[in-house]
Amino acid sequence: MLNDIADVGRDARRGGYSRHAFDGPELELRHWFVEQAVRRGLNVETDRNGNLWAWWGERGANAVVTGSHLDSVPGGGAFDGPLGVTSALEAVDLLQARGFTPKRPLAIAVFAEEEGGRFGVACLGSRLLTGAIAPETALNLKDPDGITFGEAMAKAGYDPATAGRDDKVLGRIGKFVELHVEQGRGLSVPVGVASSILAHGRWRFTFTGEGNHAGATLIEDRRDPMLPASQLVLAARKAARDGGRATVGRLVPNPGGTNVIASTVDVWLDARDADDARTRAMVAEITESATRAAEEEGCEVRVTEESYGDTVHFDAALRDELAGVLGGVPALPTGAGHDAGILAAHVPTAMLFVRNPTGVSHAPEEFAEQSDCDEGTKALASTLEHLCS
Amino acid sequence: MLNDIADVGRDARRGGYSRHAFDGPELELRHWFVEQAVRRGLNVETDRNGNLWAWWGERGANAVVTGSHLDSVPGGGAFDGPLGVTSALEAVDLLQARGFTPKRPLAIAVFAEEEGGRFGVACLGSRLLTGAIAPETALNLKDPDGITFGEAMAKAGYDPATAGRDDKVLGRIGKFVELHVEQGRGLSVPVGVASSILAHGRWRFTFTGEGNHAGATLIEDRRDPMLPASQLVLAARKAARDGGRATVGRLVPNPGGTNVIASTVDVWLDARDADDARTRAMVAEITESATRAAEEEGCEVRVTEESYGDTVHFDAALRDELAGVLGGVPALPTGAGHDAGILAAHVPTAMLFVRNPTGVSHAPEEFAEQSDCDEGTKALASTLEHLCS
Repeated sequence: MLNDIADVGRDARRGGYSRHAFDGPELELRHWFVEQAVRRGLNVETDRNGNLWAWWGERGANAVVTGSHLDSVPGGGAFDGPLGVTSALEAVDLLQARGFTPKRPLAIAVFAEEEGGRFGVACLGSRLLTGAIAPETALNLKDPDGITFGEAMAKAGYDPATAGRDDKVLGRIGKFVELHVEQGRGLSVPVGVASSILAHGRWRFTFTGEGNHAGATLIEDRRDPMLPASQLVLAARKAARDGGRATVGRLVPNPGGTNVIASTVDVWLDARDADDARTRAMVAEITESATRAAEEEGCEVRVTEESYGDTVHFDAALRDELAGVLGGVPALPTGAGHDAGILAAHVPTAMLFVRNPTGVSHAPEEFAEQSDCDEGTKALASTLEHLCS
Repeated sequence: MLNDIADVGRDARRGGYSRHAFDGPELELRHWFVEQAVRRGLNVETDRNGNLWAWWGERGANAVVTGSHLDSVPGGGAFDGPLGVTSALEAVDLLQARGFTPKRPLAIAVFAEEEGGRFGVACLGSRLLTGAIAPETALNLKDPDGITFGEAMAKAGYDPATAGRDDKVLGRIGKFVELHVEQGRGLSVPVGVASSILAHGRWRFTFTGEGNHAGATLIEDRRDPMLPASQLVLAARKAARDGGRATVGRLVPNPGGTNVIASTVDVWLDARDADDARTRAMVAEITESATRAAEEEGCEVRVTEESYGDTVHFDAALRDELAGVLGGVPALPTGAGHDAGILAAHVPTAMLFVRNPTGVSHAPEEFAEQSDCDEGTKALASTLEHLCS
C-alpha cells in the first residue's frame, strides 16, 4: 500500500519526502487514510488534538489500538510512520478475509506531528492527548514561516480551542501497539519487538553576537556567533560517549548572507542516552562548552529545552506475550522516539519493528524489503487477533 | 530622501531590509527611482543587463556617471546602496538649483544585484556589463528557491537573451564616481575618498556525508558533514591574520531536521586580504583544514569558487584630484566590494565615503548621521560639477 502514496509529498530539493503536519501533502495523506478506512467499513473520527481514529465496529473502552503517523522529517524516507499505518490497514484486510470479528473495540490511530518536523516538538498529537505538553505551549509553537501550531490546526479545519489532554479518548485505549520500521541495524530477522527507548530531548541554543560586514569588519572587532555555534557542534560529538548520541542537524545563522557576519545563530541539539542522569550530564557538558566558547567571542547564549522524555521501558508482560505469539522474535532497544513512547506512560504499550537492512532512517535511502514488510503486516494481524480474541 | 523609501522591503523577521534583485521591494525601489529621475527631467533607460541609467541631457560618450545600487543583503541596513542613489538625485537637485548645465553627458546608474544577496555572486549587473562574468554563468545562478537569475530577469520584464558584455554602454562612461556609506570605522571626518578595495571572493564548500536518524545511529557509524563544516568555521577564523578577513555567515545543513543527521552541508566562505597571493594562501589553508576534517569524518568535500576579484587600486590621479576639490579629505582603503571596483578595471573610477560612526554595516544597525549624509551629497555635487565643467 506504500506504493499508493509514493508520489505524495516528494521533496525535489532534498530528496525523499517532506510531509509536515497539516501541510498539503500530509493533509492529502489524511484524506487518503480516511478513504481507505471507510472502504474497509471503519468509522473515522478526529479527536480534539488532530489525531485520526478509525474504529472497527463500535468504539469503546478497553480497545486495542494500533497505528503510527503520516508526517515525515524534512527529506525523510517512505517507511518511517506510513508503514505503521499501511500495515494496520492491511492487517485489517487479512483479519477480515479470515472472517475474524474482534471481541474488543479495535482502532487504527494516526497521530499528528510525530516528527516535530514542522513545529519542533516531536509527538505533539500524543503529547497533547496525554497532557504531556500544555495546550498553550503547543499551540504557540511556530514553524519556520512563523505560523503557529494553532493557526495550522485551524487552517486544516480543526479547532485549536479544544486542544489538550483528552481523558475520554485516552481512557478508551486498553492496549497500544505501534508497528514501525527499525531505525538502526538491530534486527537480523524480519520482525522484532521493542524493549525500551533512550531518554531523549531537544535543546535550542541561541547565540547572539553583532551582525556586521564580512569585509569591512576587522577580526579583532568581531563578535561572531558562528564561532561558538560551531564549537557546540564539536562539543556535542565529544560528549556523546558510551552509547550516548548528540546531534546538530539544524543550524540557522541570521540573517544568513554570505557577506554578512551573523547577528544570531540558532542551533538545535538532539541528545539521547540510556537514562536521565547520563542524558542530563551530556547536555550539561555540551552547554558548558558552548557557554565558554560564547564568552570567548563576546557573545551571549540562551538555552531552551524544547522537549524531553525520560527512558521508556515498554510493558514487559505485553512485550513477552507478543514475542511469544510471534514465535519467539527478539526484543531490542531503540534510540528513536515514538508516539508509543508517550502512550507507554498511560497504557500497556508495545512496538513491533520491521528489519532495516542498512540502518538508514530519516533520509531518502531509508529502506525495508517488501517481504519483511509483509512479515510485519502478518505479525501485526496475529497480534491484533490475539489481543482481540 | 532615504525617508521616502524607509518602508520598502522591511524584514520583520531579521530586522532591517531585505531588498533582493528583481523581487517585489527592489522592483518597487526601481519604479520609485524612475519616477524621481523623470521628475528631475532625466531620461531613464534600462541596459541589456538590468541596470538603470538616468541621463541628464543627451546620453553620449565621455560621460560622468555616478550611482550605486538599491538591493540589500538579507536583513541589511538603510544606507548601503540607496545612499549612493539618493545622494546622486539630491546632487542633481543642488546643481539644477544653481543653474548648472553639465558640459559632458551626466548619468545616474543603478546596478542590479550588487550584494549577491539573492543569486550568490556580488556586482552581477556591473560584472555582466563589463564581461567579468559570462552571461550563461550569470543567467543560471539560482536563488534559494531554485529560480535562476535569467528567470527572475524575465519575470521583472527584462530580456535575459540580451544579457552580457555591452561595449556600447560601457564605452559611454568616461569617469565613474560612487558614493557609499563607509563600512568600517575608518573615517573621523564626514567624507573621504577610497584608495583601494581588498582582494576578495566567495567559495562554496559542499560537504557530503550520510543522512540518518539522530537517535538510532551509533556515533561510530556516523558520517556527519556538520563536523567538518564546523571545523571550517573555526579554521577560517584561525587563518584570517594580519588584516585578512574570513567569514562564514551562511551555512545550510540539508535536510535541516532537528532529529536528522545531515546528508550534506553547504558552507559559504567570504575571504578577503590585501592582495591576491595572501587571499589565495588564506583560502588554501582553510580548504586544507576543511578537507582534513572531512576525511576524518568519512565525508567528501567539493569546493567551488563562486566569485573572485583581485585588489582594486582606484585611479590615483582621479582620487587625488577629487580629494583636492573636496578640500583635502582623506583617502582610505576598504574591505567591502562595490560596482565601482568592477568598473575600475575599465574606466577611471573613484568612490566617496560617508562616515559610519559605529562601523556597523550589512545589519539593521547600520547608520550615518544626517549631517554627514548632507556633506556627502554636497561633496558629490561638487565632484560632478568639477568633472562636468
